[in-house]
Parts: sequence; C-alpha cells; structure tokens
Amino acid sequence: MSLGDPRDIVAAKRDGQSLPPSEVEAFVRGYSTGEVSDALAASFLMAALLNGLDDEETLALTSAMIASGRTISFALDRPTVDKHSTGGVADGVTLVFAPLAAALGLAVAKLSGRGLGHTGGTLDKLESIPGLRTDLGPERIERQVAEIGCAVAAQSPDLVPADGALYALRDATATVPSIPLIAASVMSKKLAVGTDLILLDVKAGSGAFMKNTERARDLAGACLRLARASGRKCRVGVTDMSQPLGDAVGNALDIAEAVAILHGDSRGRLRDLAVWFAGRALEALRGEAFDDACSAAEKALEDGSALERFRRMIVAQEGDPAVTDDPGSVLPAAPVVRPLVSDRQGWLAATRADAIGHAAGALGAGRVHQGDPIDPAVGIVVHPKIGDRLEVGDAIGQIHARDEASAERAAHGVLAALDVSEERVEAPELVHDWME
Amino acid sequence: MSLGDPRDIVAAKRDGQSLPPSEVEAFVRGYSTGEVSDALAASFLMAALLNGLDDEETLALTSAMIASGRTISFALDRPTVDKHSTGGVADGVTLVFAPLAAALGLAVAKLSGRGLGHTGGTLDKLESIPGLRTDLGPERIERQVAEIGCAVAAQSPDLVPADGALYALRDATATVPSIPLIAASVMSKKLAVGTDLILLDVKAGSGAFMKNTERARDLAGACLRLARASGRKCRVGVTDMSQPLGDAVGNALDIAEAVAILHGDSRGRLRDLAVWFAGRALEALRGEAFDDACSAAEKALEDGSALERFRRMIVAQEGDPAVTDDPGSVLPAAPVVRPLVSDRQGWLAATRADAIGHAAGALGAGRVHQGDPIDPAVGIVVHPKIGDRLEVGDAIGQIHARDEASAERAAHGVLAALDVSEERVEAPELVHDWME
Repeated sequence: MSLGDPRDIVAAKRDGQSLPPSEVEAFVRGYSTGEVSDALAASFLMAALLNGLDDEETLALTSAMIASGRTISFALDRPTVDKHSTGGVADGVTLVFAPLAAALGLAVAKLSGRGLGHTGGTLDKLESIPGLRTDLGPERIERQVAEIGCAVAAQSPDLVPADGALYALRDATATVPSIPLIAASVMSKKLAVGTDLILLDVKAGSGAFMKNTERARDLAGACLRLARASGRKCRVGVTDMSQPLGDAVGNALDIAEAVAILHGDSRGRLRDLAVWFAGRALEALRGEAFDDACSAAEKALEDGSALERFRRMIVAQEGDPAVTDDPGSVLPAAPVVRPLVSDRQGWLAATRADAIGHAAGALGAGRVHQGDPIDPAVGIVVHPKIGDRLEVGDAIGQIHARDEASAERAAHGVLAALDVSEERVEAPELVHDWME
Repeated sequence: MSLGDPRDIVAAKRDGQSLPPSEVEAFVRGYSTGEVSDALAASFLMAALLNGLDDEETLALTSAMIASGRTISFALDRPTVDKHSTGGVADGVTLVFAPLAAALGLAVAKLSGRGLGHTGGTLDKLESIPGLRTDLGPERIERQVAEIGCAVAAQSPDLVPADGALYALRDATATVPSIPLIAASVMSKKLAVGTDLILLDVKAGSGAFMKNTERARDLAGACLRLARASGRKCRVGVTDMSQPLGDAVGNALDIAEAVAILHGDSRGRLRDLAVWFAGRALEALRGEAFDDACSAAEKALEDGSALERFRRMIVAQEGDPAVTDDPGSVLPAAPVVRPLVSDRQGWLAATRADAIGHAAGALGAGRVHQGDPIDPAVGIVVHPKIGDRLEVGDAIGQIHARDEASAERAAHGVLAALDVSEERVEAPELVHDWME
C-alpha cells in the first residue's frame, strides 16, 4: 500500500487503535526511504510504547524490518541453531555455547552486534584476541560452519537495516523499554537468518533489561509468538540475572573465563547455563532426552572436544590460537591489577549486577555511544555468588584498570554493590522458566 | 539548571512522573539551542500528550516558551485587551471586535499568526485588502494603538520562537491534540504581550478543534489557570462552532462580511458574538454592567463609530480605505461566482462546519503547509443557520472559485454538509459558557 499522510498512522496509534498490518509496513518502509522523518517515527515509537502493539502489529513491524534488507540461509548437513541473549552482566554463554554445540554435532552461525551499555558485546570480547576477525561474509560464514560447526561474526549492515536505524532512534528518544518493540527488534534479526532453531536466553533481574521475571516472561512470550507466526522453531529460557552470571566483566577477561570453562577446569553458573542451553538445543533438534543431552555436553567440556572447536574457530577467524592454551600470554593486560578485598562479613544476599556492569563500563570496558572505543584489557573479576559466605579481608576478585584512581573507584563501586545478610541465604535458581 | 541527559526527562514523563519545573524549562531551552533533537522533542510531546502534564508542568512549559524570545508591553492611557479565538469556520469576530472595542475606548493590539488548516487566519483576511501591511514593529503598533485604539499585526518571529518551533513539530508528528500543549501554546503568546485583559474565545463543535463543549471547557480552564498563575486577568467564552459562525468562508469574503457588520446593516450570530465580547471586555475593564456595555457596543455599530475606527486602522496600515465603503470595488474577485442552490427541503438540523471549511480550503482559501500561498478571492458564502427552513431551489449562498470544476466540487461539498430534519429544530445557543 502507498503511504498517504503518515501522520494519520501515528494519530491512529496515539488514539489507541490497532493498525492494519499494511499501514505498519508502509510506515516502516516510509521511514527507510526518508518519507517518514525521525521526529514522526519517534512520536510513533512513543505512542506504540505507551498504547502497545498487538501481536498482529508486532508481526507486521517485524516483517517490515526483515523486508528492509537481505536475508541469509545456510545449506548445511547438520541442524543449525542461533542462540541469542537479551543481555546481562558477565554473560559469556555464547562464547562457550557455540563451540560446545559444534562439538555436539550442531551448527552455530552466530551473527552478533556491538555491545551498547555497561559491557561489551560478544564481538568486542572476541576481538580482544589478537588478529581475530569478525567481518566474515555469508559465504565464508557458511564454509566455516560447514567445516568447524561454529562461527561468530559481525552482523552485516544490510541485514535488517531498518532495525539498526530504529534501534538507534529508540536509544536516542527514550523509547527502548517496550516489549513489542524489543521483541520485534530481537526477532527480526533472528528470523532474517534461516536456522532450524532459535534459542533465546531472556535475562531477568538487576543486571538485565527486564528487572523481574514476569516482564521477562512477557518478552519471551512475544518472541515465541513471532516465531510461531513465521513458521520457525523457537525455544526460550528465562534465566537469572539477579547477579553477574560468570565472574568476569570485561572483554579479554571474559575470553579468559570462557577458555577456562572450555578447558573443563572452571565450574559455576556460567558453565552450568552453557551446558543447559546445549542440552536444550540437542533436545529440540535431535530429540534427545534432556538429561542425556546435558551429560553429553558436560563430557564435551571435560574431554577437550569443545575447546578444540573453539581453537579451530579462532584459527579460521585469523585469531592467535595460543589464547586457547594460555590466554594471559596473548590477551591484552591492564597496567594496574589490584585485588578486590571484602570489607564486609556475612552471607552474600544481593549483588547489584547493574552497578557492577557500570563500574566495569567506567573502567573503559563498555561504550556509552555507538562507535565509542572500548579498552579490551580492563574489567572486573568478582567471585562470590549469592549465598556465599564473606569475611572481612577475603580476596574476592580483582580490578583490572588503566590507573590506580579508576581502580579505586571501581573497587568502591563493586563493594557497594554487594549486600550481606547475617542469616544464611539461598542461591537463586539459575533458570526461572523454559518456554516453547 | 543544566540539561544533563535529556532522555531522562522524556523517560520520566513516559513513566508517568510529574517533572519538576526546572526540568521542563531545561528541556525547552535545550530544544531551542539544538541540544534536544526534533526526534527527542517529538517523543516528549507524545509522552506528554498521552500521560498528561499537570498545571505546574504546563506553567513551566509556558514560561520556558515565553523566555525563548522577547516580550512586549505597551504604555497607553486606556486599558488594553487582547482577544484570541482558538479557531473556527467563518470566525471573523476579531475583524469586528478590534475596531468596535476601540470605538468603546479600549485599546486592542492584536498580534496574529498565519492560518493553517481549512481557512486563512486574520492576517490572511486583512491582506486581501490591497496595500495593507501587517508587518508592523512594536513601536509602530504602540503608536497606532495610541492614536486609533486598534492594530492587527503579524506576530514577530522573535516573540515566543520556541512555540513556533514546537507547534511546527507538533503539526508534523501528530501531537497537536493535547489540552496542556494547546493551552501552553495559546497562552505563551498572550502572556508575552502585556495587556490588561486576555479575552479568549474557545470554540466548541464540528468546526472547531474541540469537538465538544466539555473538552472546550477543559481547555478554557487550563488557560485560565495559566493566566492566574502568571498574575494576569483573563476571561474565556466557550462559544458555539457547531456551524459556521458567519456566512462567509474565504479571505476577501470575510472582509466584505465584516465591513457589512461594521456598517450596521448585517445582523446575525457573528455580529452578536462580536458585541458580546465587546460587552464582556467593557465589563471586565471598566466595571460596566454587561447589558449596558452590550447596548453601547450595538450603538457603536449603528452610529458608524466602529466603522470609522476600522477605516482609520486600514489607512494606518496602508490599505485602500475604499474597502470600507464598497468592498467589491477593491477586493480581489474570483473569476467564477455561482449561486448555491438548496437541493433539500426541511429544517436545517446540522451544518458540518469542518466540511464547509475543507470545501473552502479545496477552493484555495486555506493552506495545508506553512508558507503555502492562498487565493484571497475564492471561498464560500452560505446563509442558512441551524433551525432555518430550507426549500429545494432556494438560493442559499454563492461559491467563489477559480474555475467551474472546482466550483462544482465545492457546491457539492457544501450541500452534503447540510443535514435537514422534517421537524422543527432549535438554533443552538451562541455562548455555552463564560469562565473567569
């Protein structure tokens, strides 16, 4: 349909009407061509945020964004899975999951964006490995996945370009926190890539965009409905982000942590969640019993087969493979590393993950604006998890910083983010919900 | 206060919070300086429209808009009144009111904007008089008002520039229909000019922005509270716009109708309302009894003293004074004038004033976009009012057009806007409410 006066579409949404799909699509197309101004698109986004978008409108928005660019499909002899996290603190699951799933016979072609906010994204983390490239074209990705089973590459700008433009506009106009808009943004990028399974990790808690489980479930439901309406298989885990998932919040530090897990000699919630998702992927794609699938995943971590896939992926993407043996010899190191020492006593009752993320961002590990440089070396390692016992003077981690002053500020920020209790505290469950 | 991250202000309004006045002011200032983008301002406007602005926020918005430019005050030996209508169809009250109030010893300095929408504004109407200028500076306006008692001039662009910018943005982003935003826009322009009385005509009905009396009363109340909080005297009439007020919808046609009323030989609702507002102005500023004041106004129309003020105003503004004796000899005339003939029988029950306004706009009498040219000669004259009896074949007015085809379309549009009833219909009251 032709666009007509695009203000009429905004007025209808403002007045609480449901828009026909053709109007949503015409509006998005008009924004892509410049017929709809940034200002009019912004008023639409705020109206959509406050008055909502129903499933049909959300699907039309998603479809229109997909139609704004190219789509990708792979011809592979094994089932493909795309895993995506809505974002958290110390959330290095993808770095472990991709080679782990590859070792289990699945194919993982992960197209990733840059991080925005308090920590870097998966691409930023990988690029802390000297030489490593993420600007792989679709053909190279397909070849690498066929050979190795996994690739993690930058999303090309011609994939869902309307989402890129709309996301930047939402960021600039305080119109980010809308479940339909988030679902359309997440799913447009997943649906534009042909895979056999979309596996979503929707985070809930202080370190996540969705602060509570209920909102996270709402987002998960919206994403599942979009997948279903598009004829795609999708599964969603709603997982805990009430504290940092792993111990490391940085870029090189995240890589080092992932390597330790892939060596099989680091345990904890990050490893557990990577295994859990690998098990779910095998269950959904191979029909394996979930418990058996998890055991297979544990074994692939223990026997070095996941690490081997990781090494081959690094080599294929031109990174220095020494990172898989001795990360410290290869990864950039911060000039100042100081121990983090507990100044409190009791059971750890809460870790404000967002505060820890911000402290890492202030060290230089994240970016405030798109295109800002990040420092791959800096960051925070903090070991205790909710339910652990702390004593004054315990060494509980490190601050990796550019200088003493910023290290001091970060240490202060991290300690202030830890709340202790005089009574014993239960660890929160790792997975709140599994939705399909 | 400094602006900080202006997105936080939008997020707070989005989340339903009341903003401190300092934040509203900083935001408007930021928009004036370009620190706040059109897109962010648009998302703010939509959030304000949907979540509302309380009185304190509305006052802060109004004050910030006033502070964006210069203000004007007059030193005159008689009380000054500024009359403003929220806009209607065939609403030439100002053209009659200004010279009438001047004849009654008041001073009227009316700063007016261009019309946008289905008909021209007061400036457009006046400029259909050959030679007439409306680009008077403040000194010239003051001198003219001191000598003659009235001036109608273009609002200078340095008066409340933020309102001009925000209004254009609202028009472009479907964020016009918000009572606090409308009240702030109207009142910022009135409060920026120092007068002893602000007299507002808030229109209600099919030809007005406010389609029902309740919404019109809400707007009137919001305007009154802004005036009160600013220590200014303000009175509001909520008046009927369920049908065109006068008979003429055009620019030169409006002037001709006003001249006929000022000659004392045309009666009807337009004259009645001009008299009513003049009476209210005398009541408020001179303490006269309203009935006596209206009688004085009637007399000033009968004895030619209002017409004499009008003639002096035209001369002072360099227009051809012959318009006051024989408008037809001076005003531009349309090439095609065809009679409008009733095709229905019954009592006129409704006149969709907006449809008549649009028909006049389609002839070329109004503008769709700021800066569009208008044709001063074209327009519609339609005499019957609600409650009048119509017979098939009655001559009920004229169409003034550029060509036969557009005349035909306009005639069709006007006739379709007239609903008749088989039963007798009461004329609607002229004034719904008087608020102070």
